[in-house]
This record gives sequence, C-alpha cells and structure tokens, in this order.
Amino acid sequence: MTALSRRGMLLGGAAAGAGFAALTACTPRPDEQLEDALLDVGSDTVPFFGEHQAGIATKPQAFATFAALTLRDDADADAIRRMLQVLTDDASRLTQGRGALADTEPELAVTPARLTVTLGFGPALVRRVAGASAVPTWLKPLPAFGIDELEDRWTGGDLLLHVAADDQVTVAHAVRMLLKTARATAVPTWRQSGFRRSRGSEEPGTTMRNLFGQVDGTVNLRPGDDDFASGVWSEEGWLKGGTSCVLRRIRMDLDGWDRLDTPGRDQAMGRRQSDGAPLTGEHEFDEPDFEAMGPHGFPVIPDFSHIARARGDDPRPTMLRRSYNYDDDTVGARDGEITDAGLLFLAYQRDVDEGFVPVQRRLDELDLLNQWTTPVGSAVFAIPPGCQEGGFIGDTLF
Amino acid sequence: MTALSRRGMLLGGAAAGAGFAALTACTPRPDEQLEDALLDVGSDTVPFFGEHQAGIATKPQAFATFAALTLRDDADADAIRRMLQVLTDDASRLTQGRGALADTEPELAVTPARLTVTLGFGPALVRRVAGASAVPTWLKPLPAFGIDELEDRWTGGDLLLHVAADDQVTVAHAVRMLLKTARATAVPTWRQSGFRRSRGSEEPGTTMRNLFGQVDGTVNLRPGDDDFASGVWSEEGWLKGGTSCVLRRIRMDLDGWDRLDTPGRDQAMGRRQSDGAPLTGEHEFDEPDFEAMGPHGFPVIPDFSHIARARGDDPRPTMLRRSYNYDDDTVGARDGEITDAGLLFLAYQRDVDEGFVPVQRRLDELDLLNQWTTPVGSAVFAIPPGCQEGGFIGDTLF
Repeated sequence: MTALSRRGMLLGGAAAGAGFAALTACTPRPDEQLEDALLDVGSDTVPFFGEHQAGIATKPQAFATFAALTLRDDADADAIRRMLQVLTDDASRLTQGRGALADTEPELAVTPARLTVTLGFGPALVRRVAGASAVPTWLKPLPAFGIDELEDRWTGGDLLLHVAADDQVTVAHAVRMLLKTARATAVPTWRQSGFRRSRGSEEPGTTMRNLFGQVDGTVNLRPGDDDFASGVWSEEGWLKGGTSCVLRRIRMDLDGWDRLDTPGRDQAMGRRQSDGAPLTGEHEFDEPDFEAMGPHGFPVIPDFSHIARARGDDPRPTMLRRSYNYDDDTVGARDGEITDAGLLFLAYQRDVDEGFVPVQRRLDELDLLNQWTTPVGSAVFAIPPGCQEGGFIGDTLF
Repeated sequence: MTALSRRGMLLGGAAAGAGFAALTACTPRPDEQLEDALLDVGSDTVPFFGEHQAGIATKPQAFATFAALTLRDDADADAIRRMLQVLTDDASRLTQGRGALADTEPELAVTPARLTVTLGFGPALVRRVAGASAVPTWLKPLPAFGIDELEDRWTGGDLLLHVAADDQVTVAHAVRMLLKTARATAVPTWRQSGFRRSRGSEEPGTTMRNLFGQVDGTVNLRPGDDDFASGVWSEEGWLKGGTSCVLRRIRMDLDGWDRLDTPGRDQAMGRRQSDGAPLTGEHEFDEPDFEAMGPHGFPVIPDFSHIARARGDDPRPTMLRRSYNYDDDTVGARDGEITDAGLLFLAYQRDVDEGFVPVQRRLDELDLLNQWTTPVGSAVFAIPPGCQEGGFIGDTLF
C-alpha cells in the first residue's frame, strides 16, 4: 500500500481509534468519496426491470462480453418469443445474484458485481417477428467506409447479448447460461470481450483511456445531462424507451503508434495525451478553440486532427459512447505479434443515421488517427426498451 | 446495492451520523474486515525487491497474463544480462505505479493495482548463460502423460513473463512494455491470460472456483503455514530463494460437464460442488475419510475420484497451486463453439519432480475428472530468487 493512499489514511485513522470516526461522524466528507472507499464490488446489483434496459445509462462496468447469435432457419416468432422469455427470466435472476432456473453452476451466480444483461436485435429478428415494416430505417449494415477492413467473423448478427459486470467470473458464467438458453433458437457466431479499469481503480474525474494512452470519450452524452434522454432513447413505436447500438471492433496498431513522438501523437488527436486537454486548453473538458493559430500561422488544433474532424457544425454530442479496450491472446504468425489489441467502440443513439453515421463520415474522409486504427468488425442492433416484471425484453415487438 | 450488503450497512451508519463511527472507533471490529471494506484497488502496491520474487506468495490478483519468449539465436549471456537488467528496472517502476524508462504511455502506469512481474527461465536460457551444469534436473519438459493433447502454440518457452494485477488495463500496459524491452533479445511465442474474482468480490474464506463451479485448490501450501517455505523455496545454488513453476493449460469440456447431474459431478470430484466439502464431511477444509463406506459397501469417496487419486501416501500438500480461469473469445468452427474455456493450472514447488509430477502421475492413470479435462499446453520454468535494489532478477545465475 502506498503511503498516501486513501485507504491508508482511513485505516491509519481507524487504527488510531478516533481518527477514522472523525473522518465520518465528526468531520463531514463528501458522501461519494466515502462510498468510493467502501466498495462492495461483489454484491452490488443493478435493477433489471425498468423503462430502459440496464447496461446503457449504467456506469460502465469493468468487463463486457458481446456475443452475437444467428437465428436458426426454423426459428419462427413463437420460438423467438419463448427464447426471449427465458432469456429475460435468466437475466432477471442472474443480475440479482441468483442462479438461472436451469443453472448447473449456481455457485458462480452469487456474486452479481453490478451484472447487467442487455439484449439487442438485428434486422432479421425484427423482420421475422413483426415484418419488414417494423425494422427501423437505420437498422442495417453501416454504409461502407473507406477505412474499413471488415471481417465476417466480427460482423453482423441477429441477436446481441451484451453481458457486463465488475467481475469476470460473473460475466463468463452469465454468458454461458444465456447461450445455453438461446441455443435451440439461435447459434452464436461471434463473441468479443473488453475491459476498462477495475471497480475501485478508476481515476476519479477522468475519462477512460484506451491502449494508445488517450482519453477516449470526452465529448459524450452523459446520464443526468439535459440532452441525454433525447439523444439516446427512441420515441418510435415498439422501440420507444429503447435505443440503437453500434459496435465497431477497431484494431489499433500499437507498434506503429510507438514510432510517433509526443507532439505527433497530440497533433493526431488534437488533445494532449498526458491530460486529455485540447491543444488550446488547460483541462480535459475545456472547449477546444479551432480558430486559434500557432506562431507559424497554422491552426493550433490541426484541421485533420481527430477532434477537429469529429466535430460537426453543431458541437453538441449526438451519441453515448461507452467503449471497452480489448487485448486478446493470439499466437503470433509474425515476429513479435502475440496480441490483437484495440477498442470495442460502442455508441448508443436514438437513430444511427443521426448519431454515429455523420460523425464517422467526417472521420472516414480525413482523420490523422486513421493511420493507426482499422475497423475490422461492425454491427448495428436495435436495443428494445426495458420491461416490467411479468413482461419480457422485446415484448413490445409482438 | 442489496439491502444487506456490508457497504450498505456501513454507509447507512455513516448517513445516520454516528453508527459508522460506532462500527470503527467505539465498537471494535476485526481489522481485516474493515480493511476489506475500505478497498483502494488502484493504488495498492506490492514491493518489488526482496528475497523472493513477488507474484508467488502474493495473494493472487484478479488478472494474470503469462507470456513465453524464445531467445533469438544470437542472444548470448551478455545480451541476456542486459535484457534482464532492463526488465528488472521496468518491473521495479511499473509495480510501484511509475512509467518504465522508455514508456510511451506513462498515463497507463499510474494505477499499479498490486501489479507484480515475475520472471521465469526455461532450460535454454539457463544453459546459454551458465552452461548445462546450472540447469536443475527437473527443468525440462514434463514426462508425457496419457491424457495430454499438447499443442506447440501453448507449450515450452525460454523466458516467462508472468504479469498480474487487479486491473486489466494495468496488466495490458505492463505486458506490452516488457515485451518491447525484451524484443531485441527474445521473441514472444505464446501468451495466455486468466482471471479470478475481482478484488473486493472474493467470497471470504472460500477457495476460488473454476468454470465447472468447483472449488479449486483446497489442499494447498499456504503462505504463513509452517510447510510453505520448505515446500516452495529452493535451497539449491543459484536458485536459492527461487522456485519452479509448472503451467498447464487445461481445456475444460463445459458442455460435456453439463450433461452430468449433481451426484455425478460430486462423485467425480470427491467433493460437493455446492460447498466444496469432501463427500464424507461438512466443510471444505474437513479431512476426507477415504475409508468410509456407503450403504452398498462402496467407498463414499470413490477410489477414482479426483481427490482420492490426487492424494498420495503422505496427505501433506507438496505444491502451491495458484491457478486462473480462462475463457477466450474464439470464432466457432463448430455449431455453438465460440469459446475456449478452462484453467491455467499453476503450481509452484522447490522441485517439480517432488511436487507436481507424482501427483500428476496418479491423476493421469485414473481420475474421473480426466473425462472432461484435457491438458493442451505445458511449460516448466525455473523462477529465480528476488533481487535487491541495484541487482537484477537472475543475477545469481551470472
């Protein structure tokens, strides 16, 4: 334990017999700080039932696995409904720390660790249940971007299981249970897992960093902000209270990035890697000044930097970004390659064509970062609203 | 947050303004319980320098990555020494929350989260530095076992980097830094990553569970026990204060395991899955009674059960087991296979031929569990002792 750790201070006080009491009862401290110090990582739960599915406005958990399934040819609307009913029942139990009904390892379910299970539907599932007219116009493969090198093995899908928790054993067990429940109706086609800082090791007030070392997600819709609900939650038909999810697997060339010096990295991003501040600012959340000129008459924030390209005419965020790092063990075919690393980029918005697509078009045309990043997987899902007890996820579609 | 969580109780007390103080200053509580509640996951550190390398007697962290490297053909003793010196320097900084000297992403190093870096040597490295006479007799591939289906891609290696922390971003960054440091001298050949319960979500007093749901590692050398030092730490020559590490990648057939009912599972293990108790006992750590007979005249604990076979004439543990679960994303070639799951079995003992091998011979001959488990990777490393400031890991070999 380092000498200056918060826990050290608190425990030091407790050992002294009075200091710790002073920190709580006598000297008021911000509740949040105390709550942070008193982590109960394993038994924390997120409610399952509600207007929206959990796992979107939820503060991101440390681990997430995304599994995509393809419907079996003979899976009709009835079969899909039965599957969704059992998946809902499983999720409602597992997220509260109880084994699923058919659980063969209920011992692994006792640690919910803020487990959430979020279901998403691809166009084929919506069509099979409710016909082509029920498919939102944006629920289709994204337009082809010039930088894409998509691989089938990370792309598409009829049903998304998004399982996240602060404990990886919990995630592994829940994913397995849900896939077993689904398998009579849908066959898994891909699975991708990512991570963020562990519960209790986040840097307070800082946006998550990706494996390039950059803060990732500064301009973002934030739960609690005025524009969050209108930006994220749909008002349309069966999807009212739901949203859309774009998942892009973005491979990052860490070796290439290494060859760039600090100014080069900062210019590619338009922000300093060190503190995330725009090149014209002092702090991460300072408004970038795209008009500011440097000594040689060039913009301080290059026109082709990531943040300059990402910004449209309207600087307000249009999506909730909620990404995860990935760093998979692979066996190196090439000298020194034993990892496949990057970002599972996740964006939620009420309409993909209003949220993700315009930003990505600008980035695709010209973004310095494109030199070190390659989208290799892509999928779009409709995320149905939440359900109440007795209902099931997706019931508004039937 | 569940109503009965420890944190809920503590916070409830704090909100009341006096109850929380009562729990600490006025009403004495066990220090350990308080320490558990006051987690500071990110800034906790494990000392790097010492008699033994960290990461062995250290309470297992939530995540571990094991990377094996092969020495380049032209790497002589001098080159190996230079590599080990820089790896030592990197590790001594990273484990204390500082960037490595050549760190290009020092922002990712600020959260040590109990990071440890443990180096291991394969026979080729020892031979190249100090000649064949310096290679311990047990430092060689394990004897071929009948159940093995070893794959080259998970087997062997000249240098082991074992990197573990309670935060996966920290692990990813440290592994990358160390591989960059090593790459002029050694080329990575495989990498395997595993997980346990997160920091703060362990079930207190319970041995970790594997993905079959079983407690895994009940009979074990435990730091602090009388037999730990003599069982784990070598007294021999350059390895004095070091140990040996056996890493076996054991694939687990989760689907096959599913077809077994609870009594079948419990009989295969000789323990109840539910609470880990031997079939003749009440609690996990009860001594199994292999003589006890059931109503039909058969032993209550079957002769071919895992715990009956694992036990030799002397019931005392001969190794420190410190395993990790793995659950890797793979793209299914077969219907429904999108995961490769199992156990990274880790055993540490002063002599592999006294520790791991006799146990594995008994299990290999006949162990009911063999039906659902397949070793697919295998490696043995000598783990040199720790070093003092100014020295480097492996310096006793030079």
